[in-house]
Amino acid sequence: MPVVDVHTHVYPPAYMALLRSRGEVPYVRSFPDSPNPMQERLVILPAEDTASTSRGRPIGPEYYDINQKLAFMDTHSIDISVLSLANPWLDWLPADTAAKTAQEINDDVNAMCALHPERLYAFGTLPLSAKAGDIVAEIARLNTLDQMRGVIIGTSGMGAGLDDPALDPVYAALEAHGQIIFLHPHYGLPSSVYGPRAGDYGHVLPLALGFPLETTIAVTRMLLSGVFDRFPKLSVLLAHSGGTLPFLAGRIESCIEHDGHLHGQPGFKSRRSVWDVLKNNVYLDAVAYGKAGLKAAVEVSGADRLMFGTDHPFFPPLDEGQEKWMSVSTNEQAVATTFDGDKEIVDAVMGGNAVKMLKLVKTSS
Amino acid sequence: MPVVDVHTHVYPPAYMALLRSRGEVPYVRSFPDSPNPMQERLVILPAEDTASTSRGRPIGPEYYDINQKLAFMDTHSIDISVLSLANPWLDWLPADTAAKTAQEINDDVNAMCALHPERLYAFGTLPLSAKAGDIVAEIARLNTLDQMRGVIIGTSGMGAGLDDPALDPVYAALEAHGQIIFLHPHYGLPSSVYGPRAGDYGHVLPLALGFPLETTIAVTRMLLSGVFDRFPKLSVLLAHSGGTLPFLAGRIESCIEHDGHLHGQPGFKSRRSVWDVLKNNVYLDAVAYGKAGLKAAVEVSGADRLMFGTDHPFFPPLDEGQEKWMSVSTNEQAVATTFDGDKEIVDAVMGGNAVKMLKLVKTSS
Repeated sequence: MPVVDVHTHVYPPAYMALLRSRGEVPYVRSFPDSPNPMQERLVILPAEDTASTSRGRPIGPEYYDINQKLAFMDTHSIDISVLSLANPWLDWLPADTAAKTAQEINDDVNAMCALHPERLYAFGTLPLSAKAGDIVAEIARLNTLDQMRGVIIGTSGMGAGLDDPALDPVYAALEAHGQIIFLHPHYGLPSSVYGPRAGDYGHVLPLALGFPLETTIAVTRMLLSGVFDRFPKLSVLLAHSGGTLPFLAGRIESCIEHDGHLHGQPGFKSRRSVWDVLKNNVYLDAVAYGKAGLKAAVEVSGADRLMFGTDHPFFPPLDEGQEKWMSVSTNEQAVATTFDGDKEIVDAVMGGNAVKMLKLVKTSS
Repeated sequence: MPVVDVHTHVYPPAYMALLRSRGEVPYVRSFPDSPNPMQERLVILPAEDTASTSRGRPIGPEYYDINQKLAFMDTHSIDISVLSLANPWLDWLPADTAAKTAQEINDDVNAMCALHPERLYAFGTLPLSAKAGDIVAEIARLNTLDQMRGVIIGTSGMGAGLDDPALDPVYAALEAHGQIIFLHPHYGLPSSVYGPRAGDYGHVLPLALGFPLETTIAVTRMLLSGVFDRFPKLSVLLAHSGGTLPFLAGRIESCIEHDGHLHGQPGFKSRRSVWDVLKNNVYLDAVAYGKAGLKAAVEVSGADRLMFGTDHPFFPPLDEGQEKWMSVSTNEQAVATTFDGDKEIVDAVMGGNAVKMLKLVKTSS
């Protein structure tokens, strides 16, 4: 059974060219006055755009050189990667050029994968700032690209969240074409929630808590707005094992059942429960860095809906001498020890589930 | 083995009198022009203080009549309750009267429990707006009140969060007196994080997500600031099974290990891991409304640190004809089904762990 990584990011050359051409967030540039004047830096959030010479984070070929991705895969015995653009995707594009840019980016990623058709697949990126018709057209077009296996989207949707009724044609098209949504955070939470000493704690609070909470809020809004009632065949792969959704599912369902306001609404009695959606629409990556998260994930969605991922190129080893990444080993180890030694389930989580769900059939060359 | 409820709230008479005497948040009053002019309403958050005649929520004797608490316990076969003030506790008191008010409130709660000394115990409430010396004095005084078994605090601490170094004397006193902290949310998250349609979803988003996320952020800040390194014997009981901490523990630990800024700090190498703190300082209530949350809770802290709770008087049945509360049954059922039928573990979670940890020895009358 192959090992499949469903959570692994890339900035393809066409996207890098776009970022390098820009002067405002998001952008890539070097800072000639900095201690490392040749080092390109990536700035993707307005809050990162304030320091004088060290804005954002260093960005190197690990983000855009597909040979580095393949080397990483070899080091970690990963047979197949399903690539996705890293945030912030195309959320920020001017509306009038978004559709055309999305085509170029998706073609670029597809071509990159097609060089290694048995090892590389991808989630497409949607022009969410374009008109709904253009988004729907790109979904249809993605079905014609051999290596594409769904789409990655953030929590903003068309700008008003994933519970925005304006997204209904998009959900309808994704459902009709059988394309899974890989739902991934980017925006985090307002920095005020982390308190006055957050800066002392490096990036831990926004990365460890803000990202998962953003995902949880977004998918709960989808649930509450009835997206899964209107599109019962829609599939969603939630990043980071669902943010915190598996853990909070019981509390969410209980709060819904105890809310007098919701009980008075039409359709309440026929609504699908959180449990139903988790077992029939939701897939979870196994990027939880421990058994506790995986146990909750399996409890709510089943081991057959859990899929290994790495989050590469994020969380590299701090010590450059290490060849295997601790972030990857931690997730591998969590999968290996969660299922009481049942090798069949471990193999399914490490790759079998993804092969089946994403139809990663080996092509003949 | 008795059934013990460690998460059950009360507004004692002295606290009700205080709330009824006030004209600003938090307060209790009736609204003569409203459809229900005799109904008292409780307003505890500024955001609730805006409607004309229906601010806040109805409040009745279920909050302050101890006979209703005892009847609820009888209905649900709960032998012992460890009462705590409901939020917002005493966080908002003027500094100059806080210490005296806290004494009155704690004496009132203790006297209420002393009427039923084998059935009612309580967590005390601290005057956190007073000087540290006054807070420490009240902690020492709580040890002289027969029914007191620790303290409840919110996430604000002395106003700057639970990672505030000004709290060190408070933590030192709690550790020295062996008093557990029951950590409970109140403030939630900024309403902007819930998006433009949050009002359509009743109270679900702030209640189901905001509360647990607030707890998770607060305790993660304690971890990151080294509270548990400086006070290795400090015990904390986290409300709602830890918010989302059990699920996110792996991600938090991984983010710490991968953070270059933190690695450079003194004491980093000798820091206690998240796993260590979860197994040795943290207790969790079993208020997760499902097996997924409990499985994660048990994985990180152990079944011997999990304790049944109800969150009474919150989440009453919407249908007044129901005698047993669904919110209680859901949590009972989750405990009953999480441990593969091991009655010894179920009994421990339903009461034995609390009896042992909180020294709920039956007194002779």
